[in-house]
Amino acid sequence: MNVGIIGATGYGGNELYRLLTKHPKVEKCILYTSSEDGKAYRESYPHLTGISDEFLVSIDSASIDKEVDVLFMASPPGAAAEILPQINLDQIKVIDLSGDLRLKDSALYEKWYKRKAADQKIVDSAVYGLSELNKPSIMNASILSNPGCFPTASILGLAPAVSNDLINESSIIIDAKTGVSGAGRKAGIGVHYSEINENLKIYKVNGHQHIPEIEQALHLMNENISAITFQTHLVPMTRGIMATIYADAKGEMSSEELLAYYQAFYRDSYFVRVRPLGEFPSTKEVYGSNFCDIGLSYDERTGRVTIVSVIDNLMKGAAGQAVQNFNMMNGFEETMGLEITPQYP
Amino acid sequence: MNVGIIGATGYGGNELYRLLTKHPKVEKCILYTSSEDGKAYRESYPHLTGISDEFLVSIDSASIDKEVDVLFMASPPGAAAEILPQINLDQIKVIDLSGDLRLKDSALYEKWYKRKAADQKIVDSAVYGLSELNKPSIMNASILSNPGCFPTASILGLAPAVSNDLINESSIIIDAKTGVSGAGRKAGIGVHYSEINENLKIYKVNGHQHIPEIEQALHLMNENISAITFQTHLVPMTRGIMATIYADAKGEMSSEELLAYYQAFYRDSYFVRVRPLGEFPSTKEVYGSNFCDIGLSYDERTGRVTIVSVIDNLMKGAAGQAVQNFNMMNGFEETMGLEITPQYP
Amino acid sequence: MNVGIIGATGYGGNELYRLLTKHPKVEKCILYTSSEDGKAYRESYPHLTGISDEFLVSIDSASIDKEVDVLFMASPPGAAAEILPQINLDQIKVIDLSGDLRLKDSALYEKWYKRKAADQKIVDSAVYGLSELNKPSIMNASILSNPGCFPTASILGLAPAVSNDLINESSIIIDAKTGVSGAGRKAGIGVHYSEINENLKIYKVNGHQHIPEIEQALHLMNENISAITFQTHLVPMTRGIMATIYADAKGEMSSEELLAYYQAFYRDSYFVRVRPLGEFPSTKEVYGSNFCDIGLSYDERTGRVTIVSVIDNLMKGAAGQAVQNFNMMNGFEETMGLEITPQYP
Amino acid sequence: MNVGIIGATGYGGNELYRLLTKHPKVEKCILYTSSEDGKAYRESYPHLTGISDEFLVSIDSASIDKEVDVLFMASPPGAAAEILPQINLDQIKVIDLSGDLRLKDSALYEKWYKRKAADQKIVDSAVYGLSELNKPSIMNASILSNPGCFPTASILGLAPAVSNDLINESSIIIDAKTGVSGAGRKAGIGVHYSEINENLKIYKVNGHQHIPEIEQALHLMNENISAITFQTHLVPMTRGIMATIYADAKGEMSSEELLAYYQAFYRDSYFVRVRPLGEFPSTKEVYGSNFCDIGLSYDERTGRVTIVSVIDNLMKGAAGQAVQNFNMMNGFEETMGLEITPQYP
Repeated sequence: MNVGIIGATGYGGNELYRLLTKHPKVEKCILYTSSEDGKAYRESYPHLTGISDEFLVSIDSASIDKEVDVLFMASPPGAAAEILPQINLDQIKVIDLSGDLRLKDSALYEKWYKRKAADQKIVDSAVYGLSELNKPSIMNASILSNPGCFPTASILGLAPAVSNDLINESSIIIDAKTGVSGAGRKAGIGVHYSEINENLKIYKVNGHQHIPEIEQALHLMNENISAITFQTHLVPMTRGIMATIYADAKGEMSSEELLAYYQAFYRDSYFVRVRPLGEFPSTKEVYGSNFCDIGLSYDERTGRVTIVSVIDNLMKGAAGQAVQNFNMMNGFEETMGLEITPQYP
Repeated sequence: MNVGIIGATGYGGNELYRLLTKHPKVEKCILYTSSEDGKAYRESYPHLTGISDEFLVSIDSASIDKEVDVLFMASPPGAAAEILPQINLDQIKVIDLSGDLRLKDSALYEKWYKRKAADQKIVDSAVYGLSELNKPSIMNASILSNPGCFPTASILGLAPAVSNDLINESSIIIDAKTGVSGAGRKAGIGVHYSEINENLKIYKVNGHQHIPEIEQALHLMNENISAITFQTHLVPMTRGIMATIYADAKGEMSSEELLAYYQAFYRDSYFVRVRPLGEFPSTKEVYGSNFCDIGLSYDERTGRVTIVSVIDNLMKGAAGQAVQNFNMMNGFEETMGLEITPQYP
Repeated sequence: MNVGIIGATGYGGNELYRLLTKHPKVEKCILYTSSEDGKAYRESYPHLTGISDEFLVSIDSASIDKEVDVLFMASPPGAAAEILPQINLDQIKVIDLSGDLRLKDSALYEKWYKRKAADQKIVDSAVYGLSELNKPSIMNASILSNPGCFPTASILGLAPAVSNDLINESSIIIDAKTGVSGAGRKAGIGVHYSEINENLKIYKVNGHQHIPEIEQALHLMNENISAITFQTHLVPMTRGIMATIYADAKGEMSSEELLAYYQAFYRDSYFVRVRPLGEFPSTKEVYGSNFCDIGLSYDERTGRVTIVSVIDNLMKGAAGQAVQNFNMMNGFEETMGLEITPQYP
Repeated sequence: MNVGIIGATGYGGNELYRLLTKHPKVEKCILYTSSEDGKAYRESYPHLTGISDEFLVSIDSASIDKEVDVLFMASPPGAAAEILPQINLDQIKVIDLSGDLRLKDSALYEKWYKRKAADQKIVDSAVYGLSELNKPSIMNASILSNPGCFPTASILGLAPAVSNDLINESSIIIDAKTGVSGAGRKAGIGVHYSEINENLKIYKVNGHQHIPEIEQALHLMNENISAITFQTHLVPMTRGIMATIYADAKGEMSSEELLAYYQAFYRDSYFVRVRPLGEFPSTKEVYGSNFCDIGLSYDERTGRVTIVSVIDNLMKGAAGQAVQNFNMMNGFEETMGLEITPQYP
């Protein structure tokens, strides 16, 4: 099977490269570029010395369907919206890691992303690829929209509680924290080492574009959920996301009972590891792997649940989940090429 | 004026040393020890080469009141409870940075701290020293209980909203994040560099001993407040605390209105800097200083306020506030010895 | 093939576990302990949730040879010296990652390690396993002494120059820098996060126990080499070693010529990547992998060469090289189980 | 006294601001800009909220001599060369923190800096301000060239050895390590957090522009010194420089003797702290202060000395030393405004 990556020079694209070049079913991995045609990929990423002999090649939308079976788009916002209409989508499968195809409602997209939405027909045909929740649709998907990093951690953390109607719909608060690689490889004062190191920031208060994505997914599980509170913090580390989720329990609850719901919900999900009571995951415990680890507790004093969900933002939050979806879309084992032990310490 | 520090070899004690040795009203600073009598202080802290010529001296509770005018206790939990009854408290003022004297209710102390409470008479006589809120009592205090680091950030972040009855009493959630120095200088696997670096942890879920301290302070402002949700996270950085506070607004609200309440509340508080709308403080912006910076926003979609409060945990969260209280207790300018520009970057 | 790890709860042992449990030829991996018999390994390393179901078992030196084919010793100094004489060494192969068996001269060991040397017969029979240099001996080894982390980076960085007689024997200076994981998982003030973060230290000046190990190896290549200068620095990062090596060139030299020697020397060494002129490796470019990357330059102004050699201290500097040796000792492909793309960023 | 800063939005300029606004002799501090006229300084540095009410003002070279008594130039390379000829230099004193005026030989400047040298007359009149070494000239200086960060650490580390003729002139090797703030506040992939964090790099191998500056200074002490080896490494931390210096001792030597020379040399230098034998400084031990700490050792095995010199690159390596020179140029106490205890941890 031949695959292509648009946006391979970004961090998400590079992580895709790491996974796909070791994937048993992938024969060839073509790296497309819009501006660096002919450049050796190794020049962008010297850690690939002796591993990568690929050169970046220009995107030719007319012929791309002859070159690859599956196209991964790890490109900046807007690129998918622009490129996809030019491609013969009958011939290839597409996995888009940008946010372009995630929101079904174009008006919502344009409000939060502050740019023009993609063609509605393409958006409609795109399957939202939160692997654990949408398996049947994903298996049949031709165009797949890979979830955002924060939404992955948040939705997996909330799904058992929401779908079992355990929490008050209007009480959901997600306090999210991320490492810096989520911002991509683009230079900027906001990712300058001296500004980030030994510092902790909150950003995009009440304005993060992942808010409508999370709400859309939760609304599908429980239509009484509309607005949630979601804030994001930048932590001085490279990889890792933690979503600390708060919600008021409906009716009687205990930590044991809550745990039982979560264990049942994820019984068959290899990549979601629900921790025993009293144990909470830290981000490094999923480092470099495709796991989403969840810890939880119910507090009798307040009647509130606290759920902690961690992922590696470049893996389960991007490239890892994309490959998980790739496996499902092609009938491979869901875990193929992803059986990676987290690197610790 | 002569001052003494018990616990000078810890990080809080060392920060007190840094401040007190530059304080215009302090002539002599005696460093007490329980176990390292005669050791040069510089040996514990080589950064004080050429600055400190002090030696650690044994605590002699019988004579301590002849040696110092004010005694700072930056000792581990339990030390104040043990030492204070042996000291002639009529002759000296005491500023205790441990948690021993913070909770007025001994049963509550013993439940959360899991150790025996201090003598009730001493606890009763101790004034809680959140400098901005208790000025008159602090000015008359003889025994002062310095607030915890998390409570300082949290209570300052909530006080204007709570005392103006702007938020729903049962809706308060504090998602707190701290640097590692808050855990003190004691070695342990939990503060091992390789376990902390490039990692983010939640700890003491629903069990942090600062919970009752925050609740006690808020309850004094609004007796309808009883239980809050408060979770703590360990961030890979040395200094800094951020409390991200969530609460449901009562009645109509706007960010502008909320801001006006905060500005009014802290109009005369030099060390609390309320930021303009749209701007949120990061921890490094108070690094090494005694400031508490606050940013806020009201979200119309959810009817919820988000308040961000940051401090340097060793300064406003410990030694800085202790010196601020020292100033007030002795009739000095509140800012004396504390006019420090945050060190950036 | 069954393998055993003594010292699996340390970082080196845990990295061995990561590699060996994915190794195609390893069926079973037994984790020995001296003091935590019956404890689930996952409790020490929660990142192995769902991956490890092993329990730590007591070392029984009498039966260990029936349980494993190869024994890895990732134990603290002295353990190998103590345990090996009790084991039936005819029945199993041993790979020792401690320094116990590295120095052939017991007096030298006792001078630098400040502890009693192991049994001389065992020391004599141990093959020094710098994989790229000692292939034939390693392939026949029954007891293998795995090199130290610093010696691995240093010797690989020097071997082509020394064995081709390119540098002045008495001019060798190695300025080495390491991440903190090299110190192991044991708690201590020296590895406290707040002491390491945003700090750079030199340690064991002129006294590091890796000095005689490097000298012994270089002396074997060129008997005129006796004493070298070798200093070590602790860098605020978890993994990675860089050795910056200085030496005076003998006779005429150019960077091009120097490079040619290095390329020729490592032509068949998959894990040593000699970089093109003008490019120097950083530690993250080998992160999590078994590579040793080398960059070099000759300076006409001073007649001196500078060679930069980087490794991941837990991989090529410990567990990775141990597995590489394991492969060679057992007739497997040298790269088996080690074809890991460095994790970046 | 009124002072002006050109380049106040950079890190060096901001550190100057921190120091000068607390300096007892400075009344007014004017912040000049080339492109952001009218912008509040606080907008660039929110940590100055409530502290800074200054606005950036355009540089008017015609009137600058009426506005300030001393002008600090913390501008990018080339700015001093361009601006100084337009200023009436009879009326004001200038302290230039860029490298523009450091090299007396223009050809050398153009070779290493790869840009046109400043007017030779201005260069000739500039006094090189390594405070501890050039006191008499500095006190009379009107134009002062502030040393580079690496040269400060390196030259202070070498001066006693070189001026007492203790080391072989052609044997000097400086292995220098720096935090990231030395690169300034400009965004770039090279200072991207994800590229720096958990990484260690060597850069500008044999090509750093501070090489000729160090050689020029050493040559003045001992004319037999011409070329040295000097390499620079980027360490994942914000502040701090360590120079690890190697050289062959001339004749007999001991650590005790070497120490005695250093202690004698710096007897009257408040800001240089020579450590006792067996103790070596780490960078954090001078954090935020103007100290240069030195540790040393002679190795009998190799006949080589190792000298470790650490500074805070923004303080003794830039703004701190500039203020020290400012004090000397104006007849103030050398330590005025600089009696800052290093911030630890």
